[in-house]
Amino acid sequence: MKLNGAQYRSVWREPDGAIRIFDQTLLPWRVEILRLTDAHQVAEAISTMRVRGAPLIGAVAAFGLALSLREDASDAAMDATATMLAATRPTAINLRWALDMMLAGLRNQPRDDRVAIAERIAQDIADDDVETNRKIGEHTLPLIQAHAAKPGPVNILTHCNAGWLATVDYGTALSGIFQAHDSGIPVHVWVDETRPRNQGALLTAFELSGHGVAHTIIADNAGGHLMQRGQVDLVIVGTDRVTRNGDVANKIGTYLKALAAKDNGVPFHVACPHSTIDWRIAQGADIPIEERDEREITDVTGQAPDGVIARLRVAAPGSPAANPAFDVTPARLVTSIVTERGVAAASEAGLLGLYPERKAS
Amino acid sequence: MKLNGAQYRSVWREPDGAIRIFDQTLLPWRVEILRLTDAHQVAEAISTMRVRGAPLIGAVAAFGLALSLREDASDAAMDATATMLAATRPTAINLRWALDMMLAGLRNQPRDDRVAIAERIAQDIADDDVETNRKIGEHTLPLIQAHAAKPGPVNILTHCNAGWLATVDYGTALSGIFQAHDSGIPVHVWVDETRPRNQGALLTAFELSGHGVAHTIIADNAGGHLMQRGQVDLVIVGTDRVTRNGDVANKIGTYLKALAAKDNGVPFHVACPHSTIDWRIAQGADIPIEERDEREITDVTGQAPDGVIARLRVAAPGSPAANPAFDVTPARLVTSIVTERGVAAASEAGLLGLYPERKAS
Repeated sequence: MKLNGAQYRSVWREPDGAIRIFDQTLLPWRVEILRLTDAHQVAEAISTMRVRGAPLIGAVAAFGLALSLREDASDAAMDATATMLAATRPTAINLRWALDMMLAGLRNQPRDDRVAIAERIAQDIADDDVETNRKIGEHTLPLIQAHAAKPGPVNILTHCNAGWLATVDYGTALSGIFQAHDSGIPVHVWVDETRPRNQGALLTAFELSGHGVAHTIIADNAGGHLMQRGQVDLVIVGTDRVTRNGDVANKIGTYLKALAAKDNGVPFHVACPHSTIDWRIAQGADIPIEERDEREITDVTGQAPDGVIARLRVAAPGSPAANPAFDVTPARLVTSIVTERGVAAASEAGLLGLYPERKAS
Repeated sequence: MKLNGAQYRSVWREPDGAIRIFDQTLLPWRVEILRLTDAHQVAEAISTMRVRGAPLIGAVAAFGLALSLREDASDAAMDATATMLAATRPTAINLRWALDMMLAGLRNQPRDDRVAIAERIAQDIADDDVETNRKIGEHTLPLIQAHAAKPGPVNILTHCNAGWLATVDYGTALSGIFQAHDSGIPVHVWVDETRPRNQGALLTAFELSGHGVAHTIIADNAGGHLMQRGQVDLVIVGTDRVTRNGDVANKIGTYLKALAAKDNGVPFHVACPHSTIDWRIAQGADIPIEERDEREITDVTGQAPDGVIARLRVAAPGSPAANPAFDVTPARLVTSIVTERGVAAASEAGLLGLYPERKAS
């Protein structure tokens, strides 16, 4: 993805095996590219969230394991490093999956070949993520193009951050937007600030700025009004989990935008890779919703005029807060789900149409 | 209304004519009661928003004019003071209305009687506001009580601030909530923080705390999810303007909550005095929506750990923002409109049922 005119991925490997990442804890305030030269530095970068986003940390961990084999390619060292890396974010499914893929491909190989094999598998994991997201965007593109005939830019509303920083490149919801921009379709993105953690105002706006895509940050409260006044052509969001029937769990507030889209005849699209579809769960009501720290509501982090990152209380002293982190948008409000295989209706039949191999499961 | 166990109004007059107000620019961080002893201090308090809220500034200005007559009760002085006070917030209708009421009642009275007359009219304006809001709450009470049979508290969601600080006492949307609490109905209020200006997290939470009403601050994004999970029994909001057909203009984001309420079978009530109904406007789409400074979105004011009130940027550097301040909730999403006269359906017929004298207009 582009940043100030240069092309980047969220992680890449240098010829000597060292890994380059953006320190995402400093974004959007400061762009700093870190060079990680051993697996301990990689583990630290994952656990302190210098890299975040499920697909990205899987790829970074795989590169980290490959890097460690340059020092010691024994089974014992390899297993110990994999265990250490897996422990950095214990609930991240992609992390475990990427490390297992590495170990399976390395286990029975001669030691002298292991560095080369590991670097190839890690690169494949990263490249596969890029290709998956590129295809998601490719399938999203016609949904955007459908609104390009009228005068002015295509106005797209998005919620939270589903861009390249959470993946190796492209992102999910933003992939089609970047590709539309690159192919010359004039697009303008309404960026929900996405309280309480402000990922929209901070990360999505940063990504769009870096790529040169026109955008405007709005309060989460404003989207419905903009739709009523005809200022939103379509909505595209990412998702944390899609259930078998097409219900969509995503960042808290997504459901409200889906209701407003329905009420105003605005298409509401959800973009995700196949790995986000949870075939074992029948419907969204069965998804447990994470309740996060109330200080995310009562306190805000930002940049002071002198450049220092600081924290303020923005709620009445002593008042408690509640902080459910996700909500579920019922399938009836979702126009389509876009994956690397194409565009599906938000229903079991629709999803099985893209993934017929799941019919038996 | 109660604050730490003591009973208060938002403005009151002392025996020597001096006016007492809360300095609302310091709330919720510091409770400071100011004593205003001449009309210039009153004008300063209004123009710097130490007092705010249409009904409240009308009453404060009236007390201010009465105070000035103690020094000089001539027609010339009286007119000059009224002009000065009216200029403090030029678009505030109640301010102009209250001053006109004062001048009309004073103009042909002997100078020696003017102080007493002025103090009586000003007190009447304040008392009438209290009585109007008390009645709004009285009519709201049965709507709350209707949910009191089930176990646990009645869960009420509100958006923005429609409490006593914007009026002389009680407030509008909160009046019924305070009265329910006082009459022993267990209530719990979900307080939308109400970005971008956070009036919910700051003022509504402060008012509810002061009166001892159980409440929880939430991100504006969370209300739909809570309704889906059965955690909201009813919604009560205030309004800035109701049109003849029952459409409701209120703080940005109200429309999204009304959609979620409809989708989940949750009653959505709007509380306001008769003066908020704009009989000249046929429908909400005709209401111009104020666009406010984008820095309300990109920057946040709050209290630092050392107690200092400070300002932080909370959006990516360089990204623009848009800030529509109100939205319109269509009458079809409004369960009822509650005024000092009773409960009406949100329709022209419903409103005319309460105000038959408007039929000819």
